[in-house]
Formats: sequence, C-alpha cells, structure tokens
Amino acid sequence: MRYLPGEQHALPGNRVTLADYAAKHFRLEVANKVATITLNRPERKNPLTFESYAELRDLFRGVAYADDVKAVVITGAGENFCSGGDVHDIIGPLTKLDMPGLLAFTRMTGDLVKAIRACPQPVISAVDGICAGAGAILALSSDMRYATERSKTAFLFTRVGLAGCDMGACALLPRLIGQGRASELLYSGRAMTGVEGERWGFFNSLHAPEELLAAAQAMAQSLADGPTFAHGMTKKMLQQEWNMGVDEAIEAEAQAQAICMATNDFHRAYHAFVAKQRPAFEGD
Amino acid sequence: MRYLPGEQHALPGNRVTLADYAAKHFRLEVANKVATITLNRPERKNPLTFESYAELRDLFRGVAYADDVKAVVITGAGENFCSGGDVHDIIGPLTKLDMPGLLAFTRMTGDLVKAIRACPQPVISAVDGICAGAGAILALSSDMRYATERSKTAFLFTRVGLAGCDMGACALLPRLIGQGRASELLYSGRAMTGVEGERWGFFNSLHAPEELLAAAQAMAQSLADGPTFAHGMTKKMLQQEWNMGVDEAIEAEAQAQAICMATNDFHRAYHAFVAKQRPAFEGD
Amino acid sequence: MRYLPGEQHALPGNRVTLADYAAKHFRLEVANKVATITLNRPERKNPLTFESYAELRDLFRGVAYADDVKAVVITGAGENFCSGGDVHDIIGPLTKLDMPGLLAFTRMTGDLVKAIRACPQPVISAVDGICAGAGAILALSSDMRYATERSKTAFLFTRVGLAGCDMGACALLPRLIGQGRASELLYSGRAMTGVEGERWGFFNSLHAPEELLAAAQAMAQSLADGPTFAHGMTKKMLQQEWNMGVDEAIEAEAQAQAICMATNDFHRAYHAFVAKQRPAFEGD
Repeated sequence: MRYLPGEQHALPGNRVTLADYAAKHFRLEVANKVATITLNRPERKNPLTFESYAELRDLFRGVAYADDVKAVVITGAGENFCSGGDVHDIIGPLTKLDMPGLLAFTRMTGDLVKAIRACPQPVISAVDGICAGAGAILALSSDMRYATERSKTAFLFTRVGLAGCDMGACALLPRLIGQGRASELLYSGRAMTGVEGERWGFFNSLHAPEELLAAAQAMAQSLADGPTFAHGMTKKMLQQEWNMGVDEAIEAEAQAQAICMATNDFHRAYHAFVAKQRPAFEGD
Repeated sequence: MRYLPGEQHALPGNRVTLADYAAKHFRLEVANKVATITLNRPERKNPLTFESYAELRDLFRGVAYADDVKAVVITGAGENFCSGGDVHDIIGPLTKLDMPGLLAFTRMTGDLVKAIRACPQPVISAVDGICAGAGAILALSSDMRYATERSKTAFLFTRVGLAGCDMGACALLPRLIGQGRASELLYSGRAMTGVEGERWGFFNSLHAPEELLAAAQAMAQSLADGPTFAHGMTKKMLQQEWNMGVDEAIEAEAQAQAICMATNDFHRAYHAFVAKQRPAFEGD
Repeated sequence: MRYLPGEQHALPGNRVTLADYAAKHFRLEVANKVATITLNRPERKNPLTFESYAELRDLFRGVAYADDVKAVVITGAGENFCSGGDVHDIIGPLTKLDMPGLLAFTRMTGDLVKAIRACPQPVISAVDGICAGAGAILALSSDMRYATERSKTAFLFTRVGLAGCDMGACALLPRLIGQGRASELLYSGRAMTGVEGERWGFFNSLHAPEELLAAAQAMAQSLADGPTFAHGMTKKMLQQEWNMGVDEAIEAEAQAQAICMATNDFHRAYHAFVAKQRPAFEGD
C-alpha cells in the first residue's frame, strides 16, 4: 500500500494495490480481486491486540483506495474466528490508563468499525468456533456473515464489567436481529448459537466447517466479478440512509442510482442482454 | 379523478372519487371502498414502462384525496406480480439519456414510492410468481404483503449493473427483514423464495395461488370497514417516526392519538361496547 | 420513595430506596435488588386506570434514583398480564374530555413509557394470558419479554376506533419485529400468539406458565448481580443511538465505554480473571 506517511498518497487516478502489502499481525492474501484476512493466533483463538486493532484499522482505510481488491473476507485460523481483546495484552493495560488513554483506545477500536463500513468493498465474515467480544463486532461490522452451526457468538463485554455499547454494537446489532434479541445478548453476554444466528438474521447462512471459507470466498468472488462501482454505492447508501427519513432516502437513492446509470457497467449489461450474453462487468 | 390540471382541484370538503377514473396502463377496479390495481401485461410478466410508472405515481397522488377508496390492493395478472422495468421500454432508452434525464427517471420512480407511502389508505400487495426489480419495490412500499410459496422476489438491480439503492430499497428493506438479510439480497440480486420471505418478515402470510387475491382483498375490506381516519394516522406515524428519537416519537403519538380520540369513530366504538354491539365505523 | 413534593429530593449521593414504598394500585415487592411489579386486578385481567397509569409513571421516575433496585420485573396476577385501559374507567371518561384533556391523558401514558426507557435498570416483562392495548405497550417498553405459549398480545387500539400509534408503538414495535409484521398488528389489532412472538423477536423465550415469573426473575437477578452501572449505560445507549448515524453512534459508544472502563467493576473483573475467580460486581 502506498498511502502511508512518507509514501505516495492515494489520489483519484493514482490508486494503490493491496497485494504488495505485508501484514504483520494477521495473514493477508489477495487472489483474483478478493482479499482474505485471516486472524492467525490459533493457539489463543485469535485474540486482538493493540497492534492488530491498529493495523486492521489502517488496512481497511487503505482498502478504500485499493484497485486490486473488490471484496474482502475475514476469517480466523484453527476453527475459531476471534476471541476478542486479549485479557493480558489489552484488558490488563487498560486498567492502568487514564481517561484520555481509555478514550484513545475506544476510539481506535471504533475507528476500525468505521473503516470497515466506509470502504466500498463488501466485507464477508466466515465465522467458525469462538466469535467473542471485539470478534463479534468484526462479524457485526461486515456486510454479510457466513457461519457454522457450532459457532458461538458472544457480545460478552458485560462479563468484564463493561457495557454492551462497544464499537457501535447498540446501533448495529438491533438493526440485524431486532431490538429485543439484541438487548438480551448485550445485557447478558450469553453466546448466540449458529442456529439462532441464522434464524435471527445475524448469519446469512450456515455451512459445514470445511466448506465455510470457500462459501464466503465464492460469494466474495461473485461480488468482485460484478458491477463493483455499483456495489460500492449500495454499501454507501446502506450506511448513509441509516437514520434518514423515508422521503429523504428516496431522493438520495434517485441521485445515487442516476450516477450508476451513467456507468459503463450499466451499458454493458444492457448490450449483453440484447445480445443474449452474460455481461462482463469491469467496475467502471 | 378531478385533481388533474384543467380539472377541479382536490380541496378539503371537495374530495374526489376514484371509481370514475379510467386507467390506461393497468386495470383498476373499485368495489366497496377497496381499489384493486392489476398490472396487466401478463405475456411479459407485467413489466413497468415510463408510462405506467407515471400513471401509477399520479394515481396514488390522487388516491390521497379519494373519498370512495379506503384501502388498495396491488396485484399482477397471469400468475406473476411484476417483472420490473422493461428492458426494451426502459433500460434501452435510459442508456441514451443525459444526467438530467436519468435523474428525472429515478425521481419519477422514487415519487411513486413516496406517493404510496403518503396516501392515507393502507396498501396491500398480493404477490405470486415473479416479483422483480421495481416490482419488488412496489411490494416493499406496501403496508402489507401476501404471497404464494412459489413467488420469487428479487431486487435484481445489480444484474443490470446498477446499485441496490433503488426507489428507497436501502432504507425500506432493512427495516422489514434486517440489515444482514437485506444486504445479501441487494448485493447479490438473488431471488427470495416465498418461504424465506414469510420467515424473514417480508411477507405477512403465504396463500395458495387461487386464494391469494381474495385473502389480500379480505384484509383490505376489513381495514376499509374499520376506523379509516385512524388507519390513516397509523400509516402517517409509521412513516413520520421512521427516524425520530424514542421520546420524540412518544410525544408525536400523544398528539396523533389525541386527535383520533376526538373522532366520532372513537365515540362509536365506546357506545357500541357499552351496548354490547359491534361498532359501525364511518371514518370520521 | 423520597422524591415526591414535600419530601427529600433525589440528589447525587442522596439516593432513595424503593423497598419502603407502599404501592396503591399494584403490588410491589423488592427482594435482593430485584423489584417485581404485579398488576393486580385479576378478576378484570388487570386493566389500567388513570390512577395506576400515573402511579406507574411516578414509580418508574423514582426507580431511576433507587439504590436498592437494580432490575425490574413486570407481571400480572391470575394468569393474565394486562388487559389495557379499562373501558369503563378510561374509555368512557375520555369520550367526555376536551382536547387539552385528551392530550393530558395521551401524554401521561406516553410519559410512563418514557420513564420505563429512562430508568437505568433493565425491565423484564413476564407475559401470560391477555396482554392487550396499553398492556402490550408495557411489554413493548420493557428491555426483555418472557412469555407463555398461550399468551395473546394485541395492539388493539384500532378496535376502539383509534390509531396504532399509541405510547410509541409505531416507533418501538417495528424495531422489534420488523416494519411489515408491526404494520399488520397495528392496522388489524389482531392478537399475536406466544409462538409468533418468539419467532418474530418480540419475546425472548417461552416458558410454562408456572415457571414464567421465576424465569423472568432469574434473569433480573442475574443482571442485578452484574455490573449494574454498565448495564445502565447499555440501556442508555440503546435508547440514545436509536436515530443516530452509524459513525456518530460509534463515537458515542467510544465515550460511553471509556466511562465504564474507569469503573471499579471493570478492575474487579480483570483481577478476578487473573486470580481465576468469578468477579463480584458492585455496580460502581
């Protein structure tokens, strides 16, 4: 990536590539326009640390400018997704911070969610095993979530004496599964099973553990092969209309869709249809 | 209808009737205060055209002033609901428009949704077969949706290179089925089955094809026979409180319900109850 | 309670106790930090009256300052939850009020919902039998809802000629069960079964009638034994973020959680974890 201080800044027409970025605190693979991020400390169920939070935040900020990535998959190594903030590496140090330090931390974690929501690429989480705390928020922040039946997703902040309002959970979770179910999970910290998650609309579908990642990557590939400029607009408007009135949202979509109708991909689709062919989208 | 330029304008105390309106681009029947709109090009699965969009928009704007209609049913002829914007009649011409022309189109389609949401009559869609693109939005814009198991509802804008944000979909769909399921449908364009739609809260109930329209009309009739002024207030507030805070919504409802308590229908209900009779509501 | 006119006002550091309050229009028991409110006119299925509305509103306003109560359960005596506003005691008198009087009533009932949402204690409804009108709103206003299969929950305002927008229903209900299902219940007034309510996310779980209250109280006890300051922050933010944008909500949570990280309960949890013990939370 070329957007870091001292390097070339991303500019319109001067975009960056992700494939040459060497991730330090997780695995990153880019293949055929799909980036796969693998949290990779399986012996501890892939906890997050100060460093991995910061690197993920900066990565997703970079992804917004990346030319070579059109969809992102997040997964965890070793049959678990993510155990959240590490007790020794994060909770312990937090108990020694003053208020500006605490706020700097909660803003850093929140900025990761903001970056995931702000990049135009759809993000898909592939959730097996433990998905807890900040790990559950990573899944929640994604556009889609695939899981296994045996997965356990817990917003367990309350178990460490904290509130359920972490990294946007009180805003995001109720819009996925409803205010009542979200309240129970956030107050109690109890684990949601894979079956509950699919039934409630948290997970889009359940898969066998050995097929999970491939299923998420196949969906990511299908989106990356689609009209990616338009997908980015879909993602932007899902975010943008979050708290608009209905009429304002309709006007916002009239503008957004008119922009998409001026793209080549729209023309490609029409001409392919007339020629009875499949359109080959190029994202412009 | 008497609200068109050159005709008499709708005024308080000078309302219009729908029954004498001769629809050009769809069938319209008014019976016992229930209007049934039938999209009626069954050989092409009832696509929309520039003309039918515009006429539907103007019809629903007129419905707001109609005295003789207290509930509306939308359905399609020939075992399909609506195939959306016609590729030849709409998509082709759109590829030739400039930006003001594109925006005029997206605003026209958005104005149809605004008009459906703004008229005080509850609108019920009866969905069988194909329900695609703008057809899916017609269903989405309704107050209730009845369907068959075999129905296929697809927000397939992405298939023609466009974004999922069309006619308010990114605002409306997540509030019906949740942000995660809506994201999948809008990004992928895949069809939602009738069973999924009922399970997710998109459809209120499923019916056998031959009983579908009658079921929707029976619900419409029951609402049309009820306290229709109050129903109009329910619809207004469901829209009005979309992005209010909870406390502001509660004050808004205190005012709205106080208005309804000043209606004759409220008094009729009380006196009927005391007399152990069924109330006969009159909508005033 | 010591917050009433002529008595000592609640101040920071000068809090009140609920256990010594003698409720007039319902039963109130406080045991081990859990208050149980029992609507108690079982021969009429526990209707509400002007007096019980007002006393409930003032009680929940007092609960916000109560030191001895950390969670609240609402239930009804005699196998029913609440039949709503009494026809003879409420509907009849309302038909004789002028507009200022009507608005004073609708604001009083709305203020009860505001008070339930504003107190920091989680509120859990235990719903058996009839749960109708304002009774359904009491359940809706709670943070969690437990029910029996045989329970019948009806927003039946339309049956007395009124609108579905009562006490915040058009804002709250769609966020629990989705806009489509909420529309059907509010327009038609029909009863939602216990099974539907659980399937749709209105009820958190179903229980046998004889185990219902104990289940609700067990959850309340578990919350009262937890980090109650943090629970209060969870409740505040679930309300506060209702109509914020996603980014604003994330910043709001960064601040709220930083506050919680400065509490003793957070430190207690960390030290208990290191010592491989269960934390003993104290709510400060």
